[in-house]
Amino acid sequence: MAYIVQKFGGTSVATLDLIKKAALRVKAEVHAGHQVVVVVSAMAGTTNSLVRFVRDLSATYDRAEYDAVVSSGEQVTAGLLALALQNIGIPARSWLGWQLPIYTTPHHTQAKIDHIDTIALKDDLNKGRVAVVAGFQGLSTNGRITTLGRGGSDTTAVALAAALKAERCDIFTDVDGVYTADPHYVTAAGKLEHIVYQEMLELAAQGAKVLQKDSIELAMKHKVRLQVLSSLSETPGTLITNDSEAQTNYKHIRGLAHSLNEERLTLTNLPQNSSKLDKVKELLDTHHIAIDMLQQNLSPCGNHLNLSFTVSEIEVERTQGILQNAKRKLQFNDLLRDPHVVKISVIGSGLQTEHSPSHKLFQTLREEGIMVKSVSSSDIKLSVLIPSIDAERAIASLHTVYQLDVEERQ
Amino acid sequence: MAYIVQKFGGTSVATLDLIKKAALRVKAEVHAGHQVVVVVSAMAGTTNSLVRFVRDLSATYDRAEYDAVVSSGEQVTAGLLALALQNIGIPARSWLGWQLPIYTTPHHTQAKIDHIDTIALKDDLNKGRVAVVAGFQGLSTNGRITTLGRGGSDTTAVALAAALKAERCDIFTDVDGVYTADPHYVTAAGKLEHIVYQEMLELAAQGAKVLQKDSIELAMKHKVRLQVLSSLSETPGTLITNDSEAQTNYKHIRGLAHSLNEERLTLTNLPQNSSKLDKVKELLDTHHIAIDMLQQNLSPCGNHLNLSFTVSEIEVERTQGILQNAKRKLQFNDLLRDPHVVKISVIGSGLQTEHSPSHKLFQTLREEGIMVKSVSSSDIKLSVLIPSIDAERAIASLHTVYQLDVEERQ
Repeated sequence: MAYIVQKFGGTSVATLDLIKKAALRVKAEVHAGHQVVVVVSAMAGTTNSLVRFVRDLSATYDRAEYDAVVSSGEQVTAGLLALALQNIGIPARSWLGWQLPIYTTPHHTQAKIDHIDTIALKDDLNKGRVAVVAGFQGLSTNGRITTLGRGGSDTTAVALAAALKAERCDIFTDVDGVYTADPHYVTAAGKLEHIVYQEMLELAAQGAKVLQKDSIELAMKHKVRLQVLSSLSETPGTLITNDSEAQTNYKHIRGLAHSLNEERLTLTNLPQNSSKLDKVKELLDTHHIAIDMLQQNLSPCGNHLNLSFTVSEIEVERTQGILQNAKRKLQFNDLLRDPHVVKISVIGSGLQTEHSPSHKLFQTLREEGIMVKSVSSSDIKLSVLIPSIDAERAIASLHTVYQLDVEERQ
Repeated sequence: MAYIVQKFGGTSVATLDLIKKAALRVKAEVHAGHQVVVVVSAMAGTTNSLVRFVRDLSATYDRAEYDAVVSSGEQVTAGLLALALQNIGIPARSWLGWQLPIYTTPHHTQAKIDHIDTIALKDDLNKGRVAVVAGFQGLSTNGRITTLGRGGSDTTAVALAAALKAERCDIFTDVDGVYTADPHYVTAAGKLEHIVYQEMLELAAQGAKVLQKDSIELAMKHKVRLQVLSSLSETPGTLITNDSEAQTNYKHIRGLAHSLNEERLTLTNLPQNSSKLDKVKELLDTHHIAIDMLQQNLSPCGNHLNLSFTVSEIEVERTQGILQNAKRKLQFNDLLRDPHVVKISVIGSGLQTEHSPSHKLFQTLREEGIMVKSVSSSDIKLSVLIPSIDAERAIASLHTVYQLDVEERQ
């Protein structure tokens, strides 16, 4: 019998009625002859309430206690889904992170899964029971509860699928698959039947929220066949696999991602001296601050440079503090902050074979009169930073130009 | 350094503000030079919500999953109180039942503590940290979470105090001690400075709600000095110990308890044959139904008996079903149900030395024109069953007659 892992996100288990609906999805796989492991998130809203409790008590909270408090949400859902399954005649039991156990690194709130002990789990599955595993949580080697970071239940599911060599890992969420662009912005956005790991990884890294980035990396590493689908509809979702399953009519450009969660910082009038630029990057690196969309321009006044980059909005103030403290050493003049930017990315392995991949992009934005503030690219990704006010118009135009609109794709 | 155990009930940790207040009570004991173990209940209301989830999903729920779900409430409070302590400069960490572990019997929802492993706990206390232990929960030998029944956090606290040979176990609750009667009924009820285990046990068994009965039994067995007090007031509470600490001016009658949670059942026209009566008791015993206030009367029609007893209101319907099923075997005529009864108990070791302990009781009720439906007694307890409509009047009169009114006691 083959193992199947099914993961239900917070919006798919937000109420008792939804938990009962999830139980029916599990029942279908059991009746299809599979051994099923289910991974659950906390009921939507629960984790936020628990996080608020912790933050209201203490600004500089102990991360081990944060984990003890916040992990309780998944514990509740695991028990409730096991009960819902038993109630429709499917033997089931809940498993908490420490019960398997799922061993992680000791980095509370941001732990990584080290390895999963599947002996007891397999024993229980062989008795004909469904295993309902609390997602997002693990156990450190010193016996404390750890958590994997927001969205970590996706990673729990993929790690279990890898450890069990599962046939498939289904991620049930509130959208019915991966789209060519955010349907809230582009009405012509269409669902992808299939996408390869590397492209999905870029979509997630550049702002698509459907899957946690870590979980895709893990799936790619262990060749776990992922499917993203809705728990409330019967339509097939999006399959995420490696190249070998890609169809011959596979489209070159797969989709657009956008991120409104970054802000742009500019250091003005730096000496034209590459060691200063290196020092900026080095300094931020020391503080684990990731930057993107790095751009340097000659300042209008002549032989000085302006250095721009984006950082995640939640890191902006910390970054500003660190840079201001090093002002004398770095020798910049001003530190400017621009929160009104959006990063738009075109993603697809086809970019590698296109003659001049950026030509179409720049032409379109120029025709729309949209200013490009900076550019970055990789093998399968082209990103531009533009004013956030133009986001919707830019995404819609590019979606048409890259022939992603639904009528084009059929 | 001496160990002190402090237990905070649900109403004492119902909000973040109350959790901060509890932290200050812990800090005071730390500054007094004690090694402090704190036991917490779930925030008031949390356990009820979780129980409702389980019951709404399934009438005949799996008790192991009930425990997994419901135990999460104490986990949250333990983490939050540890954070509140750290925030006022007191090093602290949370401990869940499975982390110590607190080993219990495998009887989910009604487990008993078997033994507590205190090695890791003591190690941590010796590092100068306060231990905040999630109450109500334990670990079965097959690795599942168990719970100790409602009010079980009191038992967790006493068991830890016993295992650590603590100097004292303070139970913080929403009343400031044990009273001579329920102050809601008797305005002249006064707080007891001191009471012995056996009397406290009778008070709890006969309806006083301030402490879980199991926890008092455990305290008596291990000679744990208990104190019941309010987390919101600085006045001393009630100390519960064995006889040796009793003062010479110790009052003979200590208090009144009442229970409105029992109903009276009567089997009419049973054959006058003691083996039939034994069969009734035997039958209910087999089904673990506890009865009280057993009374048998000759029926008006002559040589038949009416047999009456009380059972807990939550067991009434089950009891009725069991008896009706055995109607032919037991040969009774009717099964009457009277929910409008109250049991009032006079409690105190002085009853042993009184000349005619029941005389005063019956005289008072007769003077008040209150009908006594049945009577039962032990060494230190006298109980009567009366119509519930007379409850308030009976309690107030008896409180005066037994010289328990506050002005009498001073």
